[in-house]
Amino acid sequence: MSIAIDPHDIKKEKILESAYNRFLHYGYSKTTMNEIAGDVSMSKALLYYYFPDKSQLYIAVMRKLTKGYLEKLAQHADDFLNLEDAFTFQINNQHDFIVNNYNFFDFFRLNEQNLPDTIWEIIGEIHLAEINLLSNSIRKEVEKKVIRPVENPEAIIDLLLDALHGVRVSSFSQKKAFFPRKEQLEEIHQKRLLLVKIFVKGLMN
Amino acid sequence: MSIAIDPHDIKKEKILESAYNRFLHYGYSKTTMNEIAGDVSMSKALLYYYFPDKSQLYIAVMRKLTKGYLEKLAQHADDFLNLEDAFTFQINNQHDFIVNNYNFFDFFRLNEQNLPDTIWEIIGEIHLAEINLLSNSIRKEVEKKVIRPVENPEAIIDLLLDALHGVRVSSFSQKKAFFPRKEQLEEIHQKRLLLVKIFVKGLMN
Repeated sequence: MSIAIDPHDIKKEKILESAYNRFLHYGYSKTTMNEIAGDVSMSKALLYYYFPDKSQLYIAVMRKLTKGYLEKLAQHADDFLNLEDAFTFQINNQHDFIVNNYNFFDFFRLNEQNLPDTIWEIIGEIHLAEINLLSNSIRKEVEKKVIRPVENPEAIIDLLLDALHGVRVSSFSQKKAFFPRKEQLEEIHQKRLLLVKIFVKGLMN
Repeated sequence: MSIAIDPHDIKKEKILESAYNRFLHYGYSKTTMNEIAGDVSMSKALLYYYFPDKSQLYIAVMRKLTKGYLEKLAQHADDFLNLEDAFTFQINNQHDFIVNNYNFFDFFRLNEQNLPDTIWEIIGEIHLAEINLLSNSIRKEVEKKVIRPVENPEAIIDLLLDALHGVRVSSFSQKKAFFPRKEQLEEIHQKRLLLVKIFVKGLMN
Protein backbone atom coordinates (compact mmCIF):
# COMPACT_ATOMS: atom_id res chain seq x y z
CA MET A 1 0.00 0.00 0.00
CA SER A 2 1.36 3.37 -0.89
CA ILE A 3 0.45 6.54 0.91
CA ALA A 4 -0.08 9.47 -1.37
CA ILE A 5 1.71 12.49 0.01
CA ASP A 6 0.47 15.84 -1.13
CA PRO A 7 3.45 17.95 -2.33
CA HIS A 8 1.67 20.95 -0.82
CA ASP A 9 1.88 19.29 2.56
CA ILE A 10 5.60 18.68 2.18
CA LYS A 11 6.16 22.34 1.36
CA LYS A 12 3.97 23.45 4.23
CA GLU A 13 5.83 21.16 6.58
CA LYS A 14 9.15 22.67 5.49
CA ILE A 15 7.85 26.19 6.05
CA LEU A 16 6.57 25.29 9.51
CA GLU A 17 9.92 23.78 10.43
CA SER A 18 11.90 26.80 9.31
CA ALA A 19 9.46 29.18 10.98
CA TYR A 20 9.62 27.22 14.24
CA ASN A 21 13.42 27.34 14.26
CA ARG A 22 13.52 31.05 13.55
CA PHE A 23 10.81 31.93 16.09
CA LEU A 24 12.61 29.80 18.65
CA HIS A 25 16.08 31.21 18.10
CA TYR A 26 15.39 34.82 17.19
CA GLY A 27 11.89 35.38 18.54
CA TYR A 28 8.73 36.36 16.69
CA SER A 29 9.51 40.03 16.25
CA LYS A 30 12.99 39.50 14.82
CA THR A 31 11.90 36.90 12.27
CA THR A 32 10.87 38.05 8.81
CA MET A 33 8.84 36.29 6.14
CA ASN A 34 11.76 37.02 3.78
CA GLU A 35 14.14 34.94 5.86
CA ILE A 36 11.72 32.03 6.02
CA ALA A 37 11.18 32.17 2.26
CA GLY A 38 14.99 32.09 1.89
CA ASP A 39 15.33 29.08 4.22
CA VAL A 40 12.94 26.99 2.16
CA SER A 41 14.12 28.35 -1.23
CA MET A 42 10.72 29.68 -2.06
CA SER A 43 9.56 32.98 -3.52
CA LYS A 44 7.97 35.36 -1.03
CA ALA A 45 4.81 35.27 -3.14
CA LEU A 46 4.57 31.50 -2.82
CA LEU A 47 5.19 31.67 0.94
CA TYR A 48 2.33 34.17 1.22
CA TYR A 49 0.18 31.80 -0.79
CA TYR A 50 0.57 29.25 2.01
CA PHE A 51 0.43 31.70 4.91
CA PRO A 52 -1.16 35.12 4.33
CA ASP A 53 0.89 36.75 7.10
CA LYS A 54 3.44 36.11 9.82
CA SER A 55 0.88 35.84 12.60
CA GLN A 56 -1.03 33.12 10.72
CA LEU A 57 2.22 31.26 10.18
CA TYR A 58 2.94 31.57 13.88
CA ILE A 59 -0.46 30.16 14.77
CA ALA A 60 0.10 27.22 12.40
CA VAL A 61 3.41 26.44 14.14
CA MET A 62 1.67 26.77 17.49
CA ARG A 63 -0.96 24.24 16.34
CA LYS A 64 1.79 21.82 15.36
CA LEU A 65 3.56 22.19 18.68
CA THR A 66 0.28 21.73 20.51
CA LYS A 67 -0.37 18.54 18.60
CA GLY A 68 2.97 17.15 19.71
CA TYR A 69 2.34 18.26 23.28
CA LEU A 70 -1.07 16.60 23.42
CA GLU A 71 0.21 13.41 21.80
CA LYS A 72 2.84 13.13 24.50
CA LEU A 73 0.14 13.52 27.15
CA ALA A 74 -2.06 10.89 25.49
CA GLN A 75 0.80 8.40 25.07
CA HIS A 76 1.39 8.33 28.80
CA ALA A 77 -2.23 8.35 29.83
CA ASP A 78 -2.09 4.74 31.00
CA ASP A 79 1.36 4.64 32.59
CA PHE A 80 0.67 6.46 35.81
CA LEU A 81 1.23 4.68 39.09
CA ASN A 82 -1.09 6.98 40.93
CA LEU A 83 -2.71 10.38 40.89
CA GLU A 84 0.31 12.33 42.06
CA ASP A 85 2.31 10.66 39.34
CA ALA A 86 -0.25 11.72 36.72
CA PHE A 87 -0.40 15.30 37.92
CA THR A 88 3.36 15.51 38.23
CA PHE A 89 3.79 14.25 34.70
CA GLN A 90 1.38 16.89 33.45
CA ILE A 91 3.21 19.66 35.30
CA ASN A 92 6.64 18.47 34.23
CA ASN A 93 5.48 18.13 30.65
CA GLN A 94 4.14 21.67 30.65
CA HIS A 95 7.25 23.02 32.35
CA ASP A 96 9.56 21.36 29.81
CA PHE A 97 7.37 22.55 26.96
CA ILE A 98 7.67 26.16 28.11
CA VAL A 99 11.36 25.98 28.99
CA ASN A 100 12.28 24.33 25.69
CA ASN A 101 10.21 26.74 23.66
CA TYR A 102 10.72 29.85 25.75
CA ASN A 103 11.67 32.26 22.97
CA PHE A 104 8.84 30.95 20.85
CA PHE A 105 6.42 32.50 23.34
CA ASP A 106 7.88 35.90 22.54
CA PHE A 107 4.65 36.34 20.59
CA PHE A 108 2.64 36.08 23.81
CA ARG A 109 4.73 38.75 25.48
CA LEU A 110 4.44 41.05 22.48
CA ASN A 111 0.68 40.68 22.16
CA GLU A 112 -0.22 40.16 25.77
CA GLN A 113 -3.21 42.47 25.77
CA ASN A 114 -4.42 41.38 22.40
CA LEU A 115 -3.85 37.70 21.70
CA PRO A 116 -5.74 36.50 18.61
CA ASP A 117 -8.85 34.43 19.31
CA THR A 118 -7.25 31.43 17.60
CA ILE A 119 -4.57 31.37 20.29
CA TRP A 120 -7.27 31.33 22.95
CA GLU A 121 -8.95 28.46 21.10
CA ILE A 122 -5.70 26.48 21.17
CA ILE A 123 -5.24 27.20 24.87
CA GLY A 124 -8.82 26.01 25.36
CA GLU A 125 -8.11 22.76 23.50
CA ILE A 126 -5.06 22.06 25.66
CA HIS A 127 -7.09 22.76 28.78
CA LEU A 128 -9.81 20.35 27.67
CA ALA A 129 -7.32 17.59 26.82
CA GLU A 130 -5.67 17.98 30.21
CA ILE A 131 -9.01 17.78 31.96
CA ASN A 132 -9.85 14.57 30.07
CA LEU A 133 -6.52 12.94 30.81
CA LEU A 134 -6.41 13.84 34.47
CA SER A 135 -10.04 13.19 35.27
CA ASN A 136 -9.52 9.66 33.97
CA SER A 137 -6.69 9.29 36.46
CA ILE A 138 -9.08 10.38 39.20
CA ARG A 139 -11.65 7.79 38.13
CA LYS A 140 -9.04 5.03 38.25
CA GLU A 141 -7.95 6.02 41.73
CA VAL A 142 -11.53 6.12 42.94
CA GLU A 143 -12.03 2.59 41.55
CA LYS A 144 -8.92 1.47 43.42
CA LYS A 145 -10.36 3.21 46.50
CA VAL A 146 -7.16 5.19 46.93
CA ILE A 147 -9.07 8.43 46.87
CA ARG A 148 -12.55 9.30 48.06
CA PRO A 149 -15.32 9.10 45.47
CA VAL A 150 -15.82 12.46 43.80
CA GLU A 151 -19.06 13.51 42.21
CA ASN A 152 -17.51 15.31 39.29
CA PRO A 153 -13.87 14.44 38.50
CA GLU A 154 -13.76 17.06 35.72
CA ALA A 155 -14.69 19.79 38.20
CA ILE A 156 -11.93 18.66 40.56
CA ILE A 157 -9.36 18.78 37.76
CA ASP A 158 -10.65 22.13 36.61
CA LEU A 159 -10.18 23.39 40.15
CA LEU A 160 -6.65 22.04 40.33
CA LEU A 161 -5.74 23.52 36.95
CA ASP A 162 -7.14 26.88 38.06
CA ALA A 163 -5.09 26.67 41.23
CA LEU A 164 -1.94 25.77 39.28
CA HIS A 165 -2.65 28.65 36.95
CA GLY A 166 -2.76 30.91 40.00
CA VAL A 167 0.73 29.81 41.06
CA ARG A 168 1.88 30.71 37.58
CA VAL A 169 0.34 34.13 37.36
CA SER A 170 0.64 35.35 40.95
CA SER A 171 4.39 35.53 40.82
CA PHE A 172 4.38 38.05 38.02
CA SER A 173 0.90 39.55 37.78
CA GLN A 174 1.95 42.38 40.07
CA LYS A 175 4.47 43.37 37.46
CA LYS A 176 1.58 43.57 35.01
CA ALA A 177 3.29 41.00 32.82
CA PHE A 178 1.43 38.25 31.05
CA PHE A 179 4.23 35.76 30.76
CA PRO A 180 6.76 34.74 33.46
CA ARG A 181 10.42 35.61 33.06
CA LYS A 182 12.67 32.67 32.34
CA GLU A 183 14.34 32.78 35.74
CA GLN A 184 10.95 32.48 37.47
CA LEU A 185 10.03 29.23 35.75
CA GLU A 186 11.86 26.91 38.13
CA GLU A 187 10.37 28.52 41.24
CA ILE A 188 6.90 28.29 39.73
CA HIS A 189 7.54 24.65 38.86
CA GLN A 190 8.57 23.76 42.43
CA LYS A 191 5.55 25.54 43.89
CA ARG A 192 3.23 23.71 41.54
CA LEU A 193 4.72 20.34 42.46
CA LEU A 194 4.14 21.14 46.13
CA LEU A 195 0.57 22.20 45.42
CA VAL A 196 -0.09 18.92 43.62
CA LYS A 197 1.35 16.94 46.53
CA ILE A 198 -0.93 18.68 49.03
CA PHE A 199 -3.95 18.55 46.74
CA VAL A 200 -3.62 14.83 46.01
CA LYS A 201 -3.21 14.05 49.68
CA GLY A 202 -6.35 16.11 50.29
CA LEU A 203 -8.31 13.83 47.96
CA MET A 204 -7.14 10.61 49.56
CA ASN A 205 -9.13 8.29 51.73
CA MET B 1 -8.21 63.06 79.50
CA SER B 2 -9.37 64.74 76.35
CA ILE B 3 -8.45 63.66 72.89
CA ALA B 4 -7.64 66.55 70.59
CA ILE B 5 -9.37 66.06 67.26
CA ASP B 6 -7.89 67.89 64.34
CA PRO B 7 -10.67 69.72 62.45
CA HIS B 8 -8.79 68.84 59.26
CA ASP B 9 -9.30 65.19 60.08
CA ILE B 10 -13.02 65.68 60.56
CA LYS B 11 -13.29 67.35 57.17
CA LYS B 12 -11.20 64.66 55.53
CA GLU B 13 -13.36 62.00 57.12
CA LYS B 14 -16.51 63.63 55.73
CA ILE B 15 -15.01 63.80 52.25
CA LEU B 16 -13.99 60.15 52.39
CA GLU B 17 -17.47 59.14 53.46
CA SER B 18 -19.19 61.07 50.68
CA ALA B 19 -16.67 59.81 48.12
CA TYR B 20 -17.15 56.20 49.25
CA ASN B 21 -20.93 56.47 48.93
CA ARG B 22 -20.74 58.02 45.49
CA PHE B 23 -18.12 55.57 44.19
CA LEU B 24 -20.19 52.71 45.56
CA HIS B 25 -23.53 53.84 44.13
CA TYR B 26 -22.55 55.48 40.87
CA GLY B 27 -19.09 54.06 40.20
CA TYR B 28 -15.78 55.87 39.86
CA SER B 29 -16.29 57.21 36.36
CA LYS B 30 -19.71 58.71 37.03
CA THR B 31 -18.67 60.51 40.20
CA THR B 32 -17.37 64.07 39.95
CA MET B 33 -15.32 66.11 42.38
CA ASN B 34 -18.04 68.77 42.07
CA GLU B 35 -20.68 66.44 43.48
CA ILE B 36 -18.47 65.44 46.38
CA ALA B 37 -17.72 69.09 47.15
CA GLY B 38 -21.48 69.69 47.12
CA ASP B 39 -22.17 66.76 49.47
CA VAL B 40 -19.83 68.11 52.11
CA SER B 41 -20.71 71.79 51.51
CA MET B 42 -17.19 72.68 50.58
CA SER B 43 -15.73 74.78 47.79
CA LYS B 44 -14.13 72.80 44.99
CA ALA B 45 -10.88 74.62 45.73
CA LEU B 46 -10.91 73.40 49.32
CA LEU B 47 -11.71 69.85 48.26
CA TYR B 48 -8.72 69.93 45.91
CA TYR B 49 -6.62 71.22 48.79
CA TYR B 50 -7.34 67.94 50.59
CA PHE B 51 -7.20 65.67 47.57
CA PRO B 52 -5.35 66.90 44.46
CA ASP B 53 -7.44 64.74 42.13
CA LYS B 54 -10.18 62.11 41.98
CA SER B 55 -7.79 59.17 41.75
CA GLN B 56 -5.97 60.25 44.91
CA LEU B 57 -9.29 60.58 46.68
CA TYR B 58 -10.19 57.10 45.47
CA ILE B 59 -6.96 55.69 46.82
CA ALA B 60 -7.57 57.36 50.19
CA VAL B 61 -11.02 55.70 50.35
CA MET B 62 -9.44 52.40 49.36
CA ARG B 63 -6.94 52.77 52.22
CA LYS B 64 -9.78 53.35 54.65
CA LEU B 65 -11.71 50.32 53.42
CA THR B 66 -8.57 48.20 53.61
CA LYS B 67 -8.01 49.29 57.20
CA GLY B 68 -11.51 48.11 58.11
CA TYR B 69 -11.00 44.85 56.22
CA LEU B 70 -7.72 44.11 57.98
CA GLU B 71 -9.11 45.03 61.39
CA LYS B 72 -11.90 42.52 60.88
CA LEU B 73 -9.33 39.85 60.02
CA ALA B 74 -7.22 40.71 63.07
CA GLN B 75 -10.22 40.72 65.45
CA HIS B 76 -11.02 37.13 64.60
CA ALA B 77 -7.44 35.89 64.51
CA ASP B 78 -7.87 33.90 67.73
CA ASP B 79 -11.40 32.58 67.26
CA PHE B 80 -10.78 29.83 64.77
CA LEU B 81 -11.63 26.26 65.70
CA ASN B 82 -9.25 24.86 63.13
CA LEU B 83 -7.41 25.59 59.93
CA GLU B 84 -10.36 25.11 57.60
CA ASP B 85 -12.33 27.49 59.77
CA ALA B 86 -9.55 30.11 59.49
CA PHE B 87 -9.23 29.76 55.72
CA THR B 88 -12.98 29.76 55.26
CA PHE B 89 -13.30 32.92 57.30
CA GLN B 90 -10.67 34.60 55.18
CA ILE B 91 -12.39 33.57 51.95
CA ASN B 92 -15.84 34.56 53.17
CA ASN B 93 -14.51 37.87 54.42
CA GLN B 94 -12.94 38.61 51.05
CA HIS B 95 -16.05 37.48 49.17
CA ASP B 96 -18.31 39.71 51.26
CA PHE B 97 -15.91 42.62 50.89
CA ILE B 98 -16.02 42.34 47.12
CA VAL B 99 -19.77 41.71 46.88
CA ASN B 100 -20.61 44.60 49.21
CA ASN B 101 -18.28 46.99 47.46
CA TYR B 102 -18.67 45.71 43.92
CA ASN B 103 -19.32 49.05 42.21
CA PHE B 104 -16.49 50.60 44.14
CA PHE B 105 -14.10 48.38 42.15
CA ASP B 106 -15.29 50.04 38.97
CA PHE B 107 -11.93 51.83 39.16
CA PHE B 108 -10.12 48.49 38.77
CA ARG B 109 -12.12 47.65 35.68
CA LEU B 110 -11.51 51.08 34.16
CA ASN B 111 -7.77 51.04 34.80
CA GLU B 112 -7.12 47.35 34.50
CA GLN B 113 -3.98 47.69 32.44
CA ASN B 114 -2.64 50.61 34.35
CA LEU B 115 -3.44 50.47 38.05
CA PRO B 116 -1.46 53.07 40.04
CA ASP B 117 1.45 51.70 42.06
CA THR B 118 -0.25 52.78 45.29
CA ILE B 119 -3.06 50.34 44.57
CA TRP B 120 -0.51 47.56 44.12
CA GLU B 121 1.06 48.56 47.43
CA ILE B 122 -2.32 48.28 49.17
CA ILE B 123 -2.92 44.88 47.58
CA GLY B 124 0.56 43.87 48.81
CA GLU B 125 -0.28 44.98 52.36
CA ILE B 126 -3.49 42.93 52.36
CA HIS B 127 -1.57 39.93 51.06
CA LEU B 128 1.03 40.26 53.81
CA ALA B 129 -1.59 40.62 56.55
CA GLU B 130 -3.41 37.51 55.26
CA ILE B 131 -0.16 35.54 55.23
CA ASN B 132 0.55 36.57 58.83
CA LEU B 133 -2.91 35.70 60.06
CA LEU B 134 -3.15 32.37 58.29
CA SER B 135 0.39 31.19 58.94
CA ASN B 136 -0.31 31.66 62.65
CA SER B 137 -3.29 29.36 62.25
CA ILE B 138 -0.98 26.80 60.67
CA ARG B 139 1.47 27.06 63.57
CA LYS B 140 -1.31 26.46 66.08
CA GLU B 141 -2.51 23.38 64.25
CA VAL B 142 1.00 22.00 64.04
CA GLU B 143 1.34 22.47 67.82
CA LYS B 144 -1.93 20.61 68.29
CA LYS B 145 -0.54 17.93 65.93
CA VAL B 146 -3.64 18.19 63.76
CA ILE B 147 -1.51 18.89 60.74
CA ARG B 148 1.95 17.72 59.78
CA PRO B 149 4.83 19.99 60.75
CA VAL B 150 5.65 22.37 57.91
CA GLU B 151 9.04 23.94 57.45
CA ASN B 152 7.76 27.31 56.33
CA PRO B 153 4.10 28.11 57.15
CA GLU B 154 4.32 31.42 55.28
CA ALA B 155 5.29 29.61 52.08
CA ILE B 156 2.34 27.23 52.45
CA ILE B 157 -0.06 30.14 52.88
CA ASP B 158 1.51 31.96 49.98
CA LEU B 159 0.94 28.84 47.88
CA LEU B 160 -2.68 28.58 48.95
CA LEU B 161 -3.31 32.28 48.28
CA ASP B 162 -1.74 31.90 44.83
CA ALA B 163 -3.97 28.91 44.17
CA LEU B 164 -7.05 30.79 45.34
CA HIS B 165 -6.04 33.69 43.14
CA GLY B 166 -5.95 31.25 40.24
CA VAL B 167 -9.55 30.20 40.85
CA ARG B 168 -10.45 33.88 40.76
CA VAL B 169 -8.67 34.78 37.57
CA SER B 170 -9.07 31.62 35.51
CA SER B 171 -12.78 32.02 35.14
CA PHE B 172 -12.47 35.33 33.36
CA SER B 173 -8.89 35.70 32.15
CA GLN B 174 -9.84 34.20 28.81
CA LYS B 175 -12.16 37.12 28.34
CA LYS B 176 -9.14 39.37 28.90
CA ALA B 177 -10.92 40.97 31.83
CA PHE B 178 -9.18 41.90 35.03
CA PHE B 179 -12.11 41.79 37.36
CA PRO B 180 -14.83 39.11 37.58
CA ARG B 181 -18.38 39.96 36.66
CA LYS B 182 -20.78 40.13 39.56
CA GLU B 183 -22.61 36.97 38.54
CA GLN B 184 -19.34 34.99 38.58
CA LEU B 185 -18.57 35.82 42.19
CA GLU B 186 -20.68 33.10 43.79
CA GLU B 187 -19.24 30.37 41.57
CA ILE B 188 -15.71 31.54 42.33
CA HIS B 189 -16.56 31.58 46.02
CA GLN B 190 -17.84 27.98 45.98
CA LYS B 191 -14.78 26.78 44.07
CA ARG B 192 -12.46 28.47 46.53
CA LEU B 193 -14.24 26.88 49.49
CA LEU B 194 -13.79 23.48 47.87
CA LEU B 195 -10.11 24.17 47.22
CA VAL B 196 -9.59 25.12 50.85
CA LYS B 197 -11.32 21.92 52.00
CA ILE B 198 -9.06 19.76 49.85
CA PHE B 199 -5.93 21.75 50.66
CA VAL B 200 -6.48 21.60 54.43
CA LYS B 201 -7.12 17.90 54.30
CA GLY B 202 -3.89 17.58 52.33
CA LEU B 203 -1.97 19.17 55.18
CA MET B 204 -3.44 16.93 57.88
CA ASN B 205 -1.73 14.17 59.73
